Amino acid sequence: MPETSTPPSRVVLIVHGGAGVIVRDQHTPALDADCRAGLTNALRAGHAVLQQGATALDAVQAAIVVLEDAPPFNAGCGSVFTHEGVIEMDASIMDGQTRAAGAVAGVTIVKNPIRAARAVMERSPHVFLAGKGADQFARERGLEIVDPAYFRTEARWDSLQRELARDDEDALATPQLGTVGAVARDRDGNLAAGTSTGGMTNKRWGRIGDAPVIGAGTWADNATCAVSATGHGEFILRHAAAHDLHARMAYKGESVGEAARQVIRNLETVGGAVGLIALDARGNAALPFNTPGMYRGTITETGQITVAIYGDE
Amino acid sequence: MPETSTPPSRVVLIVHGGAGVIVRDQHTPALDADCRAGLTNALRAGHAVLQQGATALDAVQAAIVVLEDAPPFNAGCGSVFTHEGVIEMDASIMDGQTRAAGAVAGVTIVKNPIRAARAVMERSPHVFLAGKGADQFARERGLEIVDPAYFRTEARWDSLQRELARDDEDALATPQLGTVGAVARDRDGNLAAGTSTGGMTNKRWGRIGDAPVIGAGTWADNATCAVSATGHGEFILRHAAAHDLHARMAYKGESVGEAARQVIRNLETVGGAVGLIALDARGNAALPFNTPGMYRGTITETGQITVAIYGDE
Repeated sequence: MPETSTPPSRVVLIVHGGAGVIVRDQHTPALDADCRAGLTNALRAGHAVLQQGATALDAVQAAIVVLEDAPPFNAGCGSVFTHEGVIEMDASIMDGQTRAAGAVAGVTIVKNPIRAARAVMERSPHVFLAGKGADQFARERGLEIVDPAYFRTEARWDSLQRELARDDEDALATPQLGTVGAVARDRDGNLAAGTSTGGMTNKRWGRIGDAPVIGAGTWADNATCAVSATGHGEFILRHAAAHDLHARMAYKGESVGEAARQVIRNLETVGGAVGLIALDARGNAALPFNTPGMYRGTITETGQITVAIYGDE
Repeated sequence: MPETSTPPSRVVLIVHGGAGVIVRDQHTPALDADCRAGLTNALRAGHAVLQQGATALDAVQAAIVVLEDAPPFNAGCGSVFTHEGVIEMDASIMDGQTRAAGAVAGVTIVKNPIRAARAVMERSPHVFLAGKGADQFARERGLEIVDPAYFRTEARWDSLQRELARDDEDALATPQLGTVGAVARDRDGNLAAGTSTGGMTNKRWGRIGDAPVIGAGTWADNATCAVSATGHGEFILRHAAAHDLHARMAYKGESVGEAARQVIRNLETVGGAVGLIALDARGNAALPFNTPGMYRGTITETGQITVAIYGDE
C-alpha cells in the first residue's frame, strides 16, 4: 500500500484526481504532464484562497472547480459517459465545523457540480438532491449552466464505445474509475472535504456511486478529520468508508494515518480497489491507496507542492 | 426520551412506521387501530418467514412489504406527494452477514420499493440506483410494476394541498415525516436492516433523504447491529446515524441500547427530530426516539408482539 510521505503538521490542502489502474504505460508524456499540471493548479487555487484568509470550505471548492474544469479528470468537463451516451455527474461537500453538508447526483447542465453541492448545503433546507430536480435547483440559484456538450471529450466518448463493444453487465464489475476530491484546513483549524465525479463509464440505471454520499465518499468533522474517497464506489458505500475513518479516530483514538490505512486495508480484504485523502486538524495528511496509482498532491502553509501519480512515486 | 422496554435476548424482529409529531389528537380510533394492525401484520409476516427458517434479510423484506402495502404508512401505497404532485419513493436494504447492500431513490412505478432495493443488491453490480434508471432496472428484473395511481391516497393528496397553500421553502424545514423500516435476526444469528419511504410531503428538486443512504438510514453488520432510522432525514444524513451507532458498538464497546440512546441524544442536540430501531446479534432491542411518538413494534422468537405509537406507551 504505497503512501505519499508528506511533512507532518504543515499540509493545508490535499487533492486527488482518482485512484485506479494508473500505470506509466497508459500515459503519454503529454497526458502525464497535463495531469500533474491540473493537480498543481488545483493546489495553487486552494492555497491562494486560504492565504486570503478564506475558509477550508472555500479552498476545497476552489481546488475542485479547477479539477472539474480540467479535461483529463473524470469530473465536470471530461466526465465519463453513461450507457445511454450522456453525462451525469455527482458531487458532495461537507463543512467540518458545522457538519453541514450538500450533495447532488445525476446533474447534467451545471458547469461545476461542486458549486451545486455547496448551494444545496447553504441555500436549501436539504442535503441531497438528484436528477432533473437538482439541475433545476442549480438553475434557480443562479449557478452557471452549460450545454451538456460542454462536458464532452473525445477520449471519454471513445472509452464508452470500447465498453459498449464488449457490452455485458460483468464489465460493470471491473469499472473504469475516476473522481476528484479535496480536503483542506484553514487558519482557524476548520476542516472541509469535497468530492466530484462523472461516475463510471457505461454506468446504467441511474447508478449513484459513493462520491455524493455523505459518510461514504465525503466526510468532515473538525474533531477528527476531513476525507475524500475514490475508487470502486460500491465498496466505499458498503463500508461507509469516510465516516468509518472518522469513527476510528473519534472512538478508538487512532491517528489519521492509522485510521486511513485500516480503512483501505479493510476494503482491500473484500476486493475493493480504492484510495482516499485525509487531513486532520493539526495538518497531518494521509493519502493511502491499494491501486497501482492515484493522482494526488499536497500543499503546505508555505506553498510547498508535492504531486504524484504512480504507486512507486 | 421514551423507549419501549422489551424483554432482552429474545426479540427477533423490530418494525417502525415512522417517528414524528404523532399524538393522540391526530388519530381517530379507526386510524389508531389501522396503524396498530399494520405494525402487527408486518411483525407476523416477518416472524412467519423466520419460523420457516428463512434469513433475516427475507424477514426484513416481508415485514416492509406489509408496511409498504398498508395505506396509513408513508411508503409504497400511501406515500406522500412531491411539490409537483407525484410520488417518488426511496428504499434500502443491507445484509449484516456480507455487508451487501442495495438502494433505490426516486422510483415511481415499483409496487414494493424494498424489493427493488433487494434486487439492486443481489442482481446488479451496483449498490444505489436512482430515478428512471432505477424504475427501468426493476422492470427488467421482473418486479411488479404498477400505475403510479396505485400509490395515491386522498389523505396524502390533501396534505400536499395544505402544504402548497402555505407554500414557502421554509415549510420544508419543518417537514411532514414518515418512513417504515425493519431489523431482524435469524436463527443463524445473521442480522439485516431495511428502510422504505415516500420521503417528505411537498419535497422539491429531487430531494433524497436518509432512507436510501447506506450508513444514514440503514446499516447492518453481524458483528454489531442492524439499524433503521426515521425522522428528519437531513440530520440523519449529516450524522451518518446508522453507521455511527454501529461504530460506537464496534470501536467503543457500547451496548446497542447505549449506542442508540447516544445517537438520538446527539441528533437532539442539533435539533434533529428522529427515532430508530436497532437489534444486536443476541436479540437486544433498542427503539429510542425524541419525537412525541413513533409507530413501532417488536416480536420475540415465541411470537410475543408488543406494538406502540405514542411516547407515553
